[in-house]
Amino acid sequence: MKAVMLRNGRIEFEDVAMPEAGPGQVLVKSNSCGICGSDLHFYKHPNELLGPDPVPDVFLGHEYSAEIVAFGPECEEKFLVGDRVCSIPFLQGASVADRQAIGTGPAIYGAYSEYFLLSEALLLKVADNLPDAAVALVEPLAVGMHAVSRSDIKLGSIAWVCGAGPIGLATIASLKKLGIDTIIASDPTGKRRDLALQMGASAVFDPTAVDVMAEINGLIAESETLNSETPIVIFECVGIHTMIPELIEVAPPRSTIVFAGVHTKETSFNPIIGMVKELDIKFTFYYENSEYEAALNYLASGDLTWQPLVTGTVGYDGIQGAFEALLAPNDHIKIMIEPWRKGQLVSS
Amino acid sequence: MKAVMLRNGRIEFEDVAMPEAGPGQVLVKSNSCGICGSDLHFYKHPNELLGPDPVPDVFLGHEYSAEIVAFGPECEEKFLVGDRVCSIPFLQGASVADRQAIGTGPAIYGAYSEYFLLSEALLLKVADNLPDAAVALVEPLAVGMHAVSRSDIKLGSIAWVCGAGPIGLATIASLKKLGIDTIIASDPTGKRRDLALQMGASAVFDPTAVDVMAEINGLIAESETLNSETPIVIFECVGIHTMIPELIEVAPPRSTIVFAGVHTKETSFNPIIGMVKELDIKFTFYYENSEYEAALNYLASGDLTWQPLVTGTVGYDGIQGAFEALLAPNDHIKIMIEPWRKGQLVSS
Repeated sequence: MKAVMLRNGRIEFEDVAMPEAGPGQVLVKSNSCGICGSDLHFYKHPNELLGPDPVPDVFLGHEYSAEIVAFGPECEEKFLVGDRVCSIPFLQGASVADRQAIGTGPAIYGAYSEYFLLSEALLLKVADNLPDAAVALVEPLAVGMHAVSRSDIKLGSIAWVCGAGPIGLATIASLKKLGIDTIIASDPTGKRRDLALQMGASAVFDPTAVDVMAEINGLIAESETLNSETPIVIFECVGIHTMIPELIEVAPPRSTIVFAGVHTKETSFNPIIGMVKELDIKFTFYYENSEYEAALNYLASGDLTWQPLVTGTVGYDGIQGAFEALLAPNDHIKIMIEPWRKGQLVSS
Repeated sequence: MKAVMLRNGRIEFEDVAMPEAGPGQVLVKSNSCGICGSDLHFYKHPNELLGPDPVPDVFLGHEYSAEIVAFGPECEEKFLVGDRVCSIPFLQGASVADRQAIGTGPAIYGAYSEYFLLSEALLLKVADNLPDAAVALVEPLAVGMHAVSRSDIKLGSIAWVCGAGPIGLATIASLKKLGIDTIIASDPTGKRRDLALQMGASAVFDPTAVDVMAEINGLIAESETLNSETPIVIFECVGIHTMIPELIEVAPPRSTIVFAGVHTKETSFNPIIGMVKELDIKFTFYYENSEYEAALNYLASGDLTWQPLVTGTVGYDGIQGAFEALLAPNDHIKIMIEPWRKGQLVSS
């Protein structure tokens, strides 16, 4: 099979033996796997992931749709070979405690590779009507649903989502599903602002052209249902660490800021600014199993028009090119890797 | 009367005419006024308060017990001349919007001065059994009650209060009143740790001698009611900005940190540390009118042994010396100014 890994700052692949499913594990074929912003972060900064040189090979891929190929020993075999499945990206060992993350480390294959291992106990069956590319969106959608859950946002509040990349768009879709009516999205890219509207944003702004907080205050002034006491929850989905002091600076008094972007750089701010406004800050990172399952059910319900989020597909030998495309200025949201075939990036 | 002000980095006093009560205002005599940590902060860093030189005279004093001397025009005169009163430290003007903070600015006298102005509409009557020194503690107690309210701490949680100065002790007393049983306090000073126990802490530690988080984990391991899932709420009441990255570093996953200290210095931290632990951070600053009134009622109830918190008294001509004593290593909690008399600092 083709194993795909991050090696010496490049995405490479090589022929290896198929992994062997241990007790309670299943061997699966990776049907489709999304490229995550954190994959790009590891690609650019491999030393942040695993310390100084030499960095071992890292097997990426944690947003997947898979298909059962074989069961290891001690499986209950609740599903059949050929069934399509997904799961939170963890492989359980003999005990729950020694579980390993899939797609972020050197020890086990990730879903960029042609085949990899999953834990039978964590598997969720995929509905027949749901294409693999949609299943591969479950994971980022779960991140958005978790961010919204962590925010404790109440109906009637104003949500401001900064950044309309995959996590920002997932957050908008999750807010809409929860019943939040006033969802402001800001992103410098026109295409992303359009997608934000499709996902459920009620208004979009270009933060390089206008003062978004002033625009929100304008909307409040014009509104019959909003007023200066309406709670505001800000979702940081940009992933640039300077957003932290920026949002602390512009956030209105008594608002909540949810930091959903991954920030690994030392960041400086003046606490008195947060203090006099009595801000709440919530860091969000992962999701619960139940949130992952809720995201799968949301996609299966047909209520979310996910198709515009998939903006490209690529085979195993085109991943390096896809990474470079994503690191240059681009209009992509989610590129899906199909590790079972060759092929360069095709945008949709 | 004697007006007391911060002038050119010193506490000075001079004879001035009595202030005149405007519409809805009352002239009061300052019976007792606590020295607040923020007063010391202004003393050390006057430019942070009011910008570059020349800094005007600043009239300090916002933790007071007062006595009505005269009513201005348009007062309802619900109270009598001679009644003892207190209120949140704001003076209302013609409209609510043009209210001014008492004790932190150059425009109106604060409660360090012999007489000052209050708004009749905000006055609360003081019970006869409550000494002036206790009334002057209402304000810092309200800060602690507000910090606890902001924290959303639930019964059964673990509270860790870092720093057992006036705000830390007020926070401990407020947690105890709320019914929190596990209150850990940490402070390098033995006397403050003793006071923390008197205010309701269930255990105290010296953070210069032990790893407080390890001690808390030890208490959890020994406990029959606590476990690793018990929520932990950390209250930062030290007021040194390096506590921010320190507490983000040591806080356990899914814990809440309430920053109650005043931090005006640019502060650096690595967000990923807060992210992987999904921390909640809440900045707290002031209090609601209702919390101020609740603090007065708590003191009047007799349920709080407030007497050990008052560790010194001083007249108007000894304030400069009292400030210097508080800025040197000391065992004081709260020094009460009695602006109606002369006298150097006497520790109790």
